[in-house]
Amino acid sequence: MHINISEISKKLNLEENIIKNAFEKRIISLNKYKNKKYIAFKKKLRHIERGTTLFLNDGMDVVMGYPKIRRALLLDPTLKKYFIDKVVVEEKLNGYNIRIVNIDNDILAITRGGRICPFTTKKVLKLLNMDILRDYPDLMLCGEMVGLNNPYVPNYYQEVDNIIYIDKNTTITENLGFYIFDMRNRETNIPLLIEEKNRLLEKYNIPHVKPLGIFKKENIEEIKNIVMKLNNEKREGIVLKDPNMLVDPIKYTTHYTQYNDLSVAFKYLFDLGIDFMFSRLIREGYQSFEFNEGEKELEKRAISIGKAIVYPMVESIKMVSKGELITEDFELYFDSEGDMDEFLRYLKELHISYVVKKREVLNGKYRIKMGRVYPSTNDKIKSHLKGSLW
Amino acid sequence: MHINISEISKKLNLEENIIKNAFEKRIISLNKYKNKKYIAFKKKLRHIERGTTLFLNDGMDVVMGYPKIRRALLLDPTLKKYFIDKVVVEEKLNGYNIRIVNIDNDILAITRGGRICPFTTKKVLKLLNMDILRDYPDLMLCGEMVGLNNPYVPNYYQEVDNIIYIDKNTTITENLGFYIFDMRNRETNIPLLIEEKNRLLEKYNIPHVKPLGIFKKENIEEIKNIVMKLNNEKREGIVLKDPNMLVDPIKYTTHYTQYNDLSVAFKYLFDLGIDFMFSRLIREGYQSFEFNEGEKELEKRAISIGKAIVYPMVESIKMVSKGELITEDFELYFDSEGDMDEFLRYLKELHISYVVKKREVLNGKYRIKMGRVYPSTNDKIKSHLKGSLW
Repeated sequence: MHINISEISKKLNLEENIIKNAFEKRIISLNKYKNKKYIAFKKKLRHIERGTTLFLNDGMDVVMGYPKIRRALLLDPTLKKYFIDKVVVEEKLNGYNIRIVNIDNDILAITRGGRICPFTTKKVLKLLNMDILRDYPDLMLCGEMVGLNNPYVPNYYQEVDNIIYIDKNTTITENLGFYIFDMRNRETNIPLLIEEKNRLLEKYNIPHVKPLGIFKKENIEEIKNIVMKLNNEKREGIVLKDPNMLVDPIKYTTHYTQYNDLSVAFKYLFDLGIDFMFSRLIREGYQSFEFNEGEKELEKRAISIGKAIVYPMVESIKMVSKGELITEDFELYFDSEGDMDEFLRYLKELHISYVVKKREVLNGKYRIKMGRVYPSTNDKIKSHLKGSLW
Repeated sequence: MHINISEISKKLNLEENIIKNAFEKRIISLNKYKNKKYIAFKKKLRHIERGTTLFLNDGMDVVMGYPKIRRALLLDPTLKKYFIDKVVVEEKLNGYNIRIVNIDNDILAITRGGRICPFTTKKVLKLLNMDILRDYPDLMLCGEMVGLNNPYVPNYYQEVDNIIYIDKNTTITENLGFYIFDMRNRETNIPLLIEEKNRLLEKYNIPHVKPLGIFKKENIEEIKNIVMKLNNEKREGIVLKDPNMLVDPIKYTTHYTQYNDLSVAFKYLFDLGIDFMFSRLIREGYQSFEFNEGEKELEKRAISIGKAIVYPMVESIKMVSKGELITEDFELYFDSEGDMDEFLRYLKELHISYVVKKREVLNGKYRIKMGRVYPSTNDKIKSHLKGSLW
């Protein structure tokens, strides 16, 4: 495939030698989805965000990567320092970040890493009315794919149960949905103002994260109450935005999220990075401090964190000792065998290891149970169980 | 000071350019203690252990660094795989590793990093009978400096209380002592056999770690019982050795040690590395598995670990929020003001930050209360409290 480095360089305003070098170091990958060729940036390179996609079509269309959202460790004084006047609080969902775009009249769903995901693309077309992108082809919809039947971050969300009728007496439930939280110009990454975004999404009837409130930046107690309420409901957290999007959004998560992240991290203990674990622990320290916890609450938090670490770790060691493979399991629904195979090929291309645990055909619907394999966790535990030293 | 690279190269069997390079990269430092000039290796370089000292005297005497002791995550099957036949179990003490040598008729105590520590050297001369090194100048005594009044790892050990008489009615108690666990040829690092070592140390009446037992390597239940007993007594753990020292010793620690290490790590949360924290958590997983813990015991372990993480972290954040400086405090005793100042100069040379909290003169004895400052922990918490983002 011929790649015109000079044109890419002009389009992105990035020197040719930097682009060449990035290709050599595989920071830029060359990919294909159906008849579309595109390059994807696996890392941030100068002003080009990680996950940026450039299509090798006539227009050399660019879809900028979704910018990293920074985190407040303390709501107070961070919000007062960071925001201008008012703060919009939106719910943060625990799913997978995607961008939906219209390229040459095709609707595509792009992952955090800048790849077109065939699974997500097809679900978007099925579940969302995409007239909005036909009317505004320069915009991208940035959102979260949530639900249990999601190959990336499988978490159950009650509000995205889709009943599928198999026959007169049988239904199955696919738990999958999309919530849009941002609309941006896909080439410049300039976002719509919150009101404008919500107006458009409502007009086209697109599910979106609704504001939990708009507050003066000094009114932190109310925001803390929202966090506490979300924590009790086992929800992930909040994203805080300037109503006019003049400063970048920032995020803040609940204890439940830290607990849940740690449980996952210590189940796959040698695969998820130790930075991942450490950062979750740090968040707990600041949260406990900020929420001014007494002896009882502090103890409750400590116990919760201890269990999130020790229980899954011991469970994983036990599983390997019994000869079982540690996998992260999820079920996916497809409309055809072809779609299913296409997605499995896509995972292989991404070097994601998985095992297929079960395939079923349900009156034209295809259900697959897969297990993502975390290789280091399986291999290292096996080796320690055989007596290798640290 | 003139350094003869070519002679060092010959003595250590290490190419000249490697030595030059190591000097430039400050892997080798050039140091002085009284009239003795020496170089110290801060990192392992080929076959030269980290902490190796070479004296720039006529004999170019070498004191090899103490070899790193590897760790068993599981006693079974690691011991069966690793040892030849029998295993000597010695107690592992929680103090500071030192090597004591005789160079040109001077007794010197060398730290893990290969430096002559003036504090430790003087305490050795006071507390130990060094005739052994006058009779065997080629040997080094490898041991642990333990006790609360120790500048490196201040932990109380009941068995090293030294009563010091100030006047008729007043005594003070210095908690400090040395336990030798290895004797090695200081140039070759070849160890004496366990029996030989113990015989010599007994003959010269030198305090040493006594074997807790000698077991067939298959007899792991008894070793587990020792670990459990030590854990109940809040002791650190064990070192496992081949009676003939034909394979390197390995170590194994109690839950109490992991708990204690984590408490320290999360008190100084941005100074101790995250690898330090992660490795302690991993040990807990394997220990719980190996000790076949039931629901109650597992819960107890999880709670203990959770508290070791959350409590000190929140406490440190609270301290900084009140404007206090987080320090690791310890008291040291000196025989003269000169000795005290010499040691403070030595810490400065090593770029260790500390504050002096109190100085007292007690009838010719000098007592100093110092706080070691962990700069990253203080600075980062301060910055987060002011609202900086993660």
